[in-house]
Amino acid sequence: MRIGAPGAEKPVARLDDETYVDLSDVVGDFDEAFFGSGGPDRIRALVAERAAGGQVSRFAGERIGAPIARPHQILCIGLNYRDHAAEAGMPVPDEPILFTKSPNTLIGPDDDVRIPRGSTKPDWEVELGVVIGRRTSYLDSVEEARDAIAGYVVVNDVSERAFQLERGGQWAKGKSAETFNPAGPWLVTPDEIPDVLGLDMWLDVNGVRRQTGNTKTMIFDPYVIVHYLSQFLVLEPGDLINTGTPPGVGMGFTPPVWLQPGDVMELGITGLGSQRQHVLAPR
Amino acid sequence: MRIGAPGAEKPVARLDDETYVDLSDVVGDFDEAFFGSGGPDRIRALVAERAAGGQVSRFAGERIGAPIARPHQILCIGLNYRDHAAEAGMPVPDEPILFTKSPNTLIGPDDDVRIPRGSTKPDWEVELGVVIGRRTSYLDSVEEARDAIAGYVVVNDVSERAFQLERGGQWAKGKSAETFNPAGPWLVTPDEIPDVLGLDMWLDVNGVRRQTGNTKTMIFDPYVIVHYLSQFLVLEPGDLINTGTPPGVGMGFTPPVWLQPGDVMELGITGLGSQRQHVLAPR
Repeated sequence: MRIGAPGAEKPVARLDDETYVDLSDVVGDFDEAFFGSGGPDRIRALVAERAAGGQVSRFAGERIGAPIARPHQILCIGLNYRDHAAEAGMPVPDEPILFTKSPNTLIGPDDDVRIPRGSTKPDWEVELGVVIGRRTSYLDSVEEARDAIAGYVVVNDVSERAFQLERGGQWAKGKSAETFNPAGPWLVTPDEIPDVLGLDMWLDVNGVRRQTGNTKTMIFDPYVIVHYLSQFLVLEPGDLINTGTPPGVGMGFTPPVWLQPGDVMELGITGLGSQRQHVLAPR
Repeated sequence: MRIGAPGAEKPVARLDDETYVDLSDVVGDFDEAFFGSGGPDRIRALVAERAAGGQVSRFAGERIGAPIARPHQILCIGLNYRDHAAEAGMPVPDEPILFTKSPNTLIGPDDDVRIPRGSTKPDWEVELGVVIGRRTSYLDSVEEARDAIAGYVVVNDVSERAFQLERGGQWAKGKSAETFNPAGPWLVTPDEIPDVLGLDMWLDVNGVRRQTGNTKTMIFDPYVIVHYLSQFLVLEPGDLINTGTPPGVGMGFTPPVWLQPGDVMELGITGLGSQRQHVLAPR
């Protein structure tokens, strides 16, 4: 995790809901340099040692930041759940659809989400986020992708549908507004997840369940995605991939349901924790 | 400029074809922190002082890197020259089309461009690149965009048309391969360019003139683009915007002309310098 004020988060290892090991004396940040130099393996023994030795801190209501520093890139896979493709009125893709978000959209899991100026169709998307663990290019096999993944996070791939679909053809325009990518609360390493293809996902708006899904209904699983992307571009350590959303986005309702200032989004994925964001009016 | 080995470039100020002022003792890099802290203004007097005092170095055949460090994001405007939209068989857009490239595609102006594996339609695009000078969001007017621009660079927006147009709908997939964004040789500050909307552009492949254009035929000029983008996302200092290409890309010929291993691309823009890249086979 990363806890503390925005821009001044310190890296820690969460032990349980109440305690953590402070790593700020040995880790600059959970960033490209950290993941690119075998950081997670390096701190594993240290965390165990400090926990055993009682070098443990108690959470005291600090703000939670995104569990990774601003990455080199945020890549997103579109229409990656069959039922979501149907509700969006789009065909199930033959191969992963890639689009991007500006990296500076990354915020903490409970930070406010701000509706952008001129927005008419702000929407939500609970997603499984994949964090890349090493420089990755031209993987030979899907199996090899397992070693390229540092861990998983909950992501809310906040979207402005009019900007995305009605303003000139490419989706990035509706995905990149300030605050549009809450992530966290935790980065969970693969060894802590028995089956990443069997995780329940949910999202509520104002206490009403809107999205219900499970990663088992993904069209392209995380390993297929990482292998596939590595054929087209070079993934850097710490890069974030949002792997698509299950059914229940606002666009899919009849009539559609859009976010309003004052709304509260709550979302989560089994074992990866949950998020809660207040929705603010444009600034 | 930035000169030296890849990853170890030093920041310098070019005086003329033969001499430069070394800035590596006062500037870490031409990166987000530099542009975000008024770097160009800060070094202006220093460069003049060192040049006057004879603190000048001579170019000695060093490699030239991209004139900026890897940026937070590379944004691209599609179909921004009327004649190019026609040759691509696409309508002239009503508003700027935004797509993105992976930031790690950035290379020096004379570095090799490598065709990606599986590529069948690699193509070229000479473009005017705009470098952002400060954090920019919700500009009130197009006029205000002038102050947000740190300078201009030549860019080759190398593209793989099959990846871009035949592999799942969004363009980023065909724009983000390793080495796909040569930039430089120089960042030219706006005060050195009398009229950014009257610059000749050209690109040759193997000595055959393929692209001929002028920035005066852009549909959306750099100020309109920066103002427009600032309504959808936050531009960071050092961000690069590729502003679109004039006619003459390989896709536009009948039959189309694609890059081949061994080809040489040469390209340039009046006052911004020129580039020369060898094209390599996939690795």
